[in-house]
Amino acid sequence: MPDHAIRGIIGYTITPFDDDGRLDLPALDLTIDRMIDAGVHAIAPLGSTGEGAYLTEDEWTAVAERSVRTINGRVPVVVSVSDLTTAGAVRRAKAAESFGADAVMVLPTSYWKLQEEEIVAHYQAVGKAVGVPVMLYNNHAVSGIDMSVDLILRIVEAVDNVTMVKESTGDIQRMHQIHLRTDGQIPFYNGSNPLALEAFAAGATGWCTAAANLIAGHNIQLYEAACEGRLLDARASFYRQLPLLDFILKGGLPKTIKAGLDIAGVPVGAPRLPVQPLADPARAKLTEILTALH
Amino acid sequence: MPDHAIRGIIGYTITPFDDDGRLDLPALDLTIDRMIDAGVHAIAPLGSTGEGAYLTEDEWTAVAERSVRTINGRVPVVVSVSDLTTAGAVRRAKAAESFGADAVMVLPTSYWKLQEEEIVAHYQAVGKAVGVPVMLYNNHAVSGIDMSVDLILRIVEAVDNVTMVKESTGDIQRMHQIHLRTDGQIPFYNGSNPLALEAFAAGATGWCTAAANLIAGHNIQLYEAACEGRLLDARASFYRQLPLLDFILKGGLPKTIKAGLDIAGVPVGAPRLPVQPLADPARAKLTEILTALH
Amino acid sequence: MPDHAIRGIIGYTITPFDDDGRLDLPALDLTIDRMIDAGVHAIAPLGSTGEGAYLTEDEWTAVAERSVRTINGRVPVVVSVSDLTTAGAVRRAKAAESFGADAVMVLPTSYWKLQEEEIVAHYQAVGKAVGVPVMLYNNHAVSGIDMSVDLILRIVEAVDNVTMVKESTGDIQRMHQIHLRTDGQIPFYNGSNPLALEAFAAGATGWCTAAANLIAGHNIQLYEAACEGRLLDARASFYRQLPLLDFILKGGLPKTIKAGLDIAGVPVGAPRLPVQPLADPARAKLTEILTALH
Amino acid sequence: MPDHAIRGIIGYTITPFDDDGRLDLPALDLTIDRMIDAGVHAIAPLGSTGEGAYLTEDEWTAVAERSVRTINGRVPVVVSVSDLTTAGAVRRAKAAESFGADAVMVLPTSYWKLQEEEIVAHYQAVGKAVGVPVMLYNNHAVSGIDMSVDLILRIVEAVDNVTMVKESTGDIQRMHQIHLRTDGQIPFYNGSNPLALEAFAAGATGWCTAAANLIAGHNIQLYEAACEGRLLDARASFYRQLPLLDFILKGGLPKTIKAGLDIAGVPVGAPRLPVQPLADPARAKLTEILTALH
Repeated sequence: MPDHAIRGIIGYTITPFDDDGRLDLPALDLTIDRMIDAGVHAIAPLGSTGEGAYLTEDEWTAVAERSVRTINGRVPVVVSVSDLTTAGAVRRAKAAESFGADAVMVLPTSYWKLQEEEIVAHYQAVGKAVGVPVMLYNNHAVSGIDMSVDLILRIVEAVDNVTMVKESTGDIQRMHQIHLRTDGQIPFYNGSNPLALEAFAAGATGWCTAAANLIAGHNIQLYEAACEGRLLDARASFYRQLPLLDFILKGGLPKTIKAGLDIAGVPVGAPRLPVQPLADPARAKLTEILTALH
Repeated sequence: MPDHAIRGIIGYTITPFDDDGRLDLPALDLTIDRMIDAGVHAIAPLGSTGEGAYLTEDEWTAVAERSVRTINGRVPVVVSVSDLTTAGAVRRAKAAESFGADAVMVLPTSYWKLQEEEIVAHYQAVGKAVGVPVMLYNNHAVSGIDMSVDLILRIVEAVDNVTMVKESTGDIQRMHQIHLRTDGQIPFYNGSNPLALEAFAAGATGWCTAAANLIAGHNIQLYEAACEGRLLDARASFYRQLPLLDFILKGGLPKTIKAGLDIAGVPVGAPRLPVQPLADPARAKLTEILTALH
Repeated sequence: MPDHAIRGIIGYTITPFDDDGRLDLPALDLTIDRMIDAGVHAIAPLGSTGEGAYLTEDEWTAVAERSVRTINGRVPVVVSVSDLTTAGAVRRAKAAESFGADAVMVLPTSYWKLQEEEIVAHYQAVGKAVGVPVMLYNNHAVSGIDMSVDLILRIVEAVDNVTMVKESTGDIQRMHQIHLRTDGQIPFYNGSNPLALEAFAAGATGWCTAAANLIAGHNIQLYEAACEGRLLDARASFYRQLPLLDFILKGGLPKTIKAGLDIAGVPVGAPRLPVQPLADPARAKLTEILTALH
Repeated sequence: MPDHAIRGIIGYTITPFDDDGRLDLPALDLTIDRMIDAGVHAIAPLGSTGEGAYLTEDEWTAVAERSVRTINGRVPVVVSVSDLTTAGAVRRAKAAESFGADAVMVLPTSYWKLQEEEIVAHYQAVGKAVGVPVMLYNNHAVSGIDMSVDLILRIVEAVDNVTMVKESTGDIQRMHQIHLRTDGQIPFYNGSNPLALEAFAAGATGWCTAAANLIAGHNIQLYEAACEGRLLDARASFYRQLPLLDFILKGGLPKTIKAGLDIAGVPVGAPRLPVQPLADPARAKLTEILTALH
């Protein structure tokens, strides 16, 4: 695998709101600093966890700019620039690059199902618009579009700066295929939290996770054990954090991570409706899981 | 079934763009007039076909206002007001009502999967915001959310002005259940084109279809045969139009309907990227199908 | 559609067992006579409902022979001859023909998924072995094999005496495709009970149903209304019987039909384990549904 | 995890036939000896790979007896005793025990979908009939029944001698849940070949695989690396054998393993129809894959 700046634990930021539902940028700074202080290897603002899809264009821009400025080169930053329209994704990608992002992440979301050539053209438009690397992001559970390994490799071939693949389908066989068919030359990143152990076993370069807001130390421990080939340690670390990983997957990331931060003494407000805050019984369960991990 | 203003063929509008990708409202007027002249029983602007999800807020507002004004009471109008956020859906519903819409249609779209109570709350918020009836719209293929019959009936129970159900899953058994469990008291509308014959057989009150832009006469003929209980005529009419219905379903509504209007001499521009215009071989096929129908 | 001997309501027999789990052939005679007396248009022994897959070879042969002899030409008889191996299906088909069956029905069941050419070869082997028509039967829910419309038409093309298609997937679009692509020249039969109304609306030649053991009169009423193009009568008849049709589908045919016959005063024993008899609360519900229908 | 006799690589036997389609027991002996000589830790006759479902009762009995006698205590033997009926599974389990099997494997196959209590009762009947341990086998792709982790654990709880779980769904999350919810006290075995690396990473006790007929040395190498916690070695070993594992999964086990043995100079005949022998282009591909592995 080629040397690559982005590897290890890539922490997703949430987007904090105040009581009136407006952006709370100082709280955003706080959550970024927490993750960097805990040792994450990179930060990814405005992904699924960051409620990027629920923000107005002005809000999106403000969060992107502030995130890059706050991170300030301490770790690489990958800004999610996904938009329903190609024009919107291009505009966001250019903005992210102008703020100083090290890479951009693109998930082809669509209301109407897209044909393969439409998806390729979407990546070509974004790739051509920026000079930084593009991380292709596959996650049909949120986007409604499932890119096959064939299509992913076709895009990687067609667009020079699509150099990283983030796979969030939770299907380990796709990672196998990416590895086998590229002789391990295309780094892939895992975005399915309960697959973290197996993705590293299969050779993933990194793990993009919102869990790093809550248990970055555990995430890093698993990564390091995997890097060093210590399987038994990696397994033990993984099973320790699995109850949390399962919980945040089933509960939905924005609502569970925001609740977890609040439990940890970092109030970041509620998700945007129709997504509601974590209900009390689930919050009690989350507290219990987090306590067991500290 | 209670008497109800909205029944029969409800034609979806497309949203015309000019060569620069800007709204072309005179072309919108033309497509509306065509459908009304052809005899459709109601019009539904800004639905899936209308690329509502791809418009800016200003564009959405302009299309909603213009549509209602152009229709001008000639037939009932149901404006789709779906938005990813509850605040957005409420704002659009109020706008549509203020312009004079007879009803609004709400599809709960979501990036994050919603819990049932979040979906109910979303409908409650919209229902409370307006005085006009709300048509609940179920279509997981575009929205990523599949509402069960149980949930649909729970919403109908919980929100007074949710008085109509549009089912687009293509699963006839759901229509059976709605009919059986409400003793036929909740009118349901079919949104799956190749299910038109069977939906009417099962008692659907109406058929929401973009096909009315191209073959309104055939659509109306099927509806009238079904209303009058003439099964053999309904079947014959249905099989005549099925090749077109299959074609527009598989090809995607905005691109195929826009191509069909262009073929018919009504240029309405391309869909918004990443959705591309209908490619040439498919356009030739569409021409052939339409010719056979005239 | 060409004239065809087999049409209308085709009643599936159950296979009665005594208290020791042995075949009860006199009870089989009784259930056959009941259906013929009630007016069904044909009888299909040893199908899914008949627990054909659970019988030893000797039992299967005894039931096939006895069924044909008891029916004795009063109505056409279609014997299901499905077996996991091709050799077994051929043997059963020959036996059924030798007993006097008017047609045989073949469902390609398989433990290992079959390739398309393997399925075609299976039908060729059976078709070649007998002189009577073969009804192709598609039902992946019980067989694990889902034949596409393409494959079905390929088999119809390749094997002369495959002249009828029984579709039990419950997907009305497949019936549309069979009708459209053969210009209505291949008769198709519906095997999904809750789809009965729509299958007839779409032009089905017959309805293969175990419900005819319990409510043959209602089944026939629906068929006749559909034949004569009286849609409103067909719809009313269908919704009356739908609660029973849903119940037997969800409960499983052998156990619910056997319970229904017992309720009707025709004891036919329990299904073969691991399938258990209908439990008491469900039996009470079935009694209630049947009472409402008489 | 408790000490347990059965662990490591558990090789599935195929069932050889001669040119007339009759059992070829000397060839069976040969394939068994090959696997034991190559170092497999246990042998499992008559599983899916062994075409157990396609044999007559007499054939099944002959293969079971011969397999146990040939293995002759050199390694533990787990005989698959699955049958569509409970009576059949009980009869086979007793026979296997009488021949000297160390354990029996039970897959609940069914034509009719089974309710959970029916599946539990099926396992209770088998468990009560024998004194040896029972390995529960979950594989809906061949059986049509998908047992949830909840149901699996309910059966383990209800039946004393169900002490092992073989999971072949290919879903690693189920293995996680079995491990987490039993504190690692229930040994689980992987039956999905392309999941071998990850199953061991997650703590699987063994890998039941037909690949051991062809590449037992590679299988054992992966197991040993995993046991000793050498992740990088395990990964390298896994990716080397993955092309073969993918090939046999996609091609179907009996036909690909039989072809592979033939290529290796051990003729074992064709699978039973409708399953056909591996076609020539695929056989050439298999030769190529095997050559690369030697």
